[in-house]
Amino acid sequence: MGITKSVQKLVAYTPGEQPKCRGVVKLNTNENPYPPSPKCLEVLRNFDLEYLRKYPDPVFIKLREAIAKRFKTTIEKVFVGNGSDEILALAAKAFVENDESIGSLDPSYSLYKTLADIRDVPWGGFDLASLSRTSRAARTSSPSLFLLTNPNAPTGMMKGPSEIEDFAAKFKGVVIVDEAYADFASENCMHLATKEGNENLIVMRTFSKSFSLAGLRVGYCVGPEKLIEAMYKVKDSYNVDALAQAIALVAFKDYSYMRSNVKKVVAEREKLTAALVSRGWDVLPSETNFIFAKPPEGQNAADIFAALKEKKIFVRYFPGPKTGERLRITIGTPEQMAKLIKALSSFH
Amino acid sequence: MGITKSVQKLVAYTPGEQPKCRGVVKLNTNENPYPPSPKCLEVLRNFDLEYLRKYPDPVFIKLREAIAKRFKTTIEKVFVGNGSDEILALAAKAFVENDESIGSLDPSYSLYKTLADIRDVPWGGFDLASLSRTSRAARTSSPSLFLLTNPNAPTGMMKGPSEIEDFAAKFKGVVIVDEAYADFASENCMHLATKEGNENLIVMRTFSKSFSLAGLRVGYCVGPEKLIEAMYKVKDSYNVDALAQAIALVAFKDYSYMRSNVKKVVAEREKLTAALVSRGWDVLPSETNFIFAKPPEGQNAADIFAALKEKKIFVRYFPGPKTGERLRITIGTPEQMAKLIKALSSFH
Repeated sequence: MGITKSVQKLVAYTPGEQPKCRGVVKLNTNENPYPPSPKCLEVLRNFDLEYLRKYPDPVFIKLREAIAKRFKTTIEKVFVGNGSDEILALAAKAFVENDESIGSLDPSYSLYKTLADIRDVPWGGFDLASLSRTSRAARTSSPSLFLLTNPNAPTGMMKGPSEIEDFAAKFKGVVIVDEAYADFASENCMHLATKEGNENLIVMRTFSKSFSLAGLRVGYCVGPEKLIEAMYKVKDSYNVDALAQAIALVAFKDYSYMRSNVKKVVAEREKLTAALVSRGWDVLPSETNFIFAKPPEGQNAADIFAALKEKKIFVRYFPGPKTGERLRITIGTPEQMAKLIKALSSFH
Repeated sequence: MGITKSVQKLVAYTPGEQPKCRGVVKLNTNENPYPPSPKCLEVLRNFDLEYLRKYPDPVFIKLREAIAKRFKTTIEKVFVGNGSDEILALAAKAFVENDESIGSLDPSYSLYKTLADIRDVPWGGFDLASLSRTSRAARTSSPSLFLLTNPNAPTGMMKGPSEIEDFAAKFKGVVIVDEAYADFASENCMHLATKEGNENLIVMRTFSKSFSLAGLRVGYCVGPEKLIEAMYKVKDSYNVDALAQAIALVAFKDYSYMRSNVKKVVAEREKLTAALVSRGWDVLPSETNFIFAKPPEGQNAADIFAALKEKKIFVRYFPGPKTGERLRITIGTPEQMAKLIKALSSFH
């Protein structure tokens, strides 16, 4: 008794560094460089404290209605969480038995493995094609929950909806397509989540990236009613606070503001990619608000990471055989990108 | 595969009703009738959206520092959650193996049983004396986590710190003293949580009741470093949003404002108790912001509950052998209490 054995062994997930000093060019946690919708400020300025005194709507009806309306579906297919992180943890509870496992692409969002560790089940890294070929006999080793970041992180690359649909059709468990970056991509899978006959595919999105609300902690997902109902059963009574519900609602309704910021980020992504390629970098084709880039011959990702940090430019470096050759660089403002390029040029 | 067997069977917890119509006297969910500190409004009016654009402090240092300072302890002994609900769910993950169980008093906060169901472990209702007498041989049936609401809900009654201390000393698992209502009580157990040598007792509090911030979802707990460390390991990366951290901080620092509201609520509690007793009710001695009261002979709690609702006065009724004879009535403003008394008088 005391702390469980699995938690004793657990190594906690390390979020990207939030630097304390001023004047930092922060390109390490895929935050949006532009502020949230000005409507969010109106909510803050006019918010009635009465709504903090009382418990919030436990099932966030207004926010679900707005989400359902946009994706032409019903509120029974919509769930909202205290960030996508909470949705992932609830899914691990609702869709994975103690003797089952969780899978994801490899590399992918490194939290997934921690999530499996917290849930105390095995984690496995797969590519979709080989997992689809898994024979019936080997099914016991196939995960019961697959967390499919699309576009993927840290690569920035995406799979087309038809490939995802084929995979989900063959997969025996629940597939969560984590579309944290989908607003920056040319395609997405939301139509698969709302499609008649869909039984196992959930699409998850967040307000943290495209809506510039990482500090607010709101994520949502859309999928088959039965699966969504299960998530409501395992959530905390009041998992999304009253302010978060109100602010996320106005941000979501101001969709065109979000789209205009996304457009600026995508334009800057293409510019940065071209600039790096012209300097001999290898840049994976990104559909997100970051790039995953390998320095030219003779330069080393870890060294550049450290040298940039010296110059108060924070990017993300993931050590390891599959990721250690590259840097993940969040797309910032034109000014931030110019500073980055200037700093990189000075390293020659 | 799909939804786990235990979640399929699960009956979700039902929070108290949040009436949609206007003019309701809401005495059903133990909210504070007075608004949160005016400093919370200042935070809202001056909050910089930049702090919503970026991820929040994942470990809420400022809020922990304020809490640690007040209780003369260190930040390593302080954890903050997205409401006490989240803290309870994390404790069930960190301190309970799959083949162990969760205990609480009976009756107590009805969420605890749901929590055990979600964790997929048995729940048991105990009284402390009999649990302490449990023999070594029977220890396997003793819970590994005991959720001890003190003062208790829905009874409103409390056990003294020395009884709690004795119990925790004999108990083999982790004890969480849920002090949601402690600010309304004459004593509390915080000194046990911070005491040198304490290995298994955690005290949990919430901003929902005494600080009038139910809509914000912030709870905290204080206990042995090892146990608190385990909770950090199993939490979501960013479980408390930037606004909630900022608002809770100023509310907590405005302790005297909270105390003055508590004083008003306690005075009204004593007045309501006297008024009901003089009308033939049996009222348990309450140390909380509610009373648990049994109507006079010939009147029935369920009927009064329904009749009050007709008059737009919402109280809480828990059916069942241990609770069904009484009503749980939240203490409101003097005006609300006058309306309640008037309505009750009309039922004779």
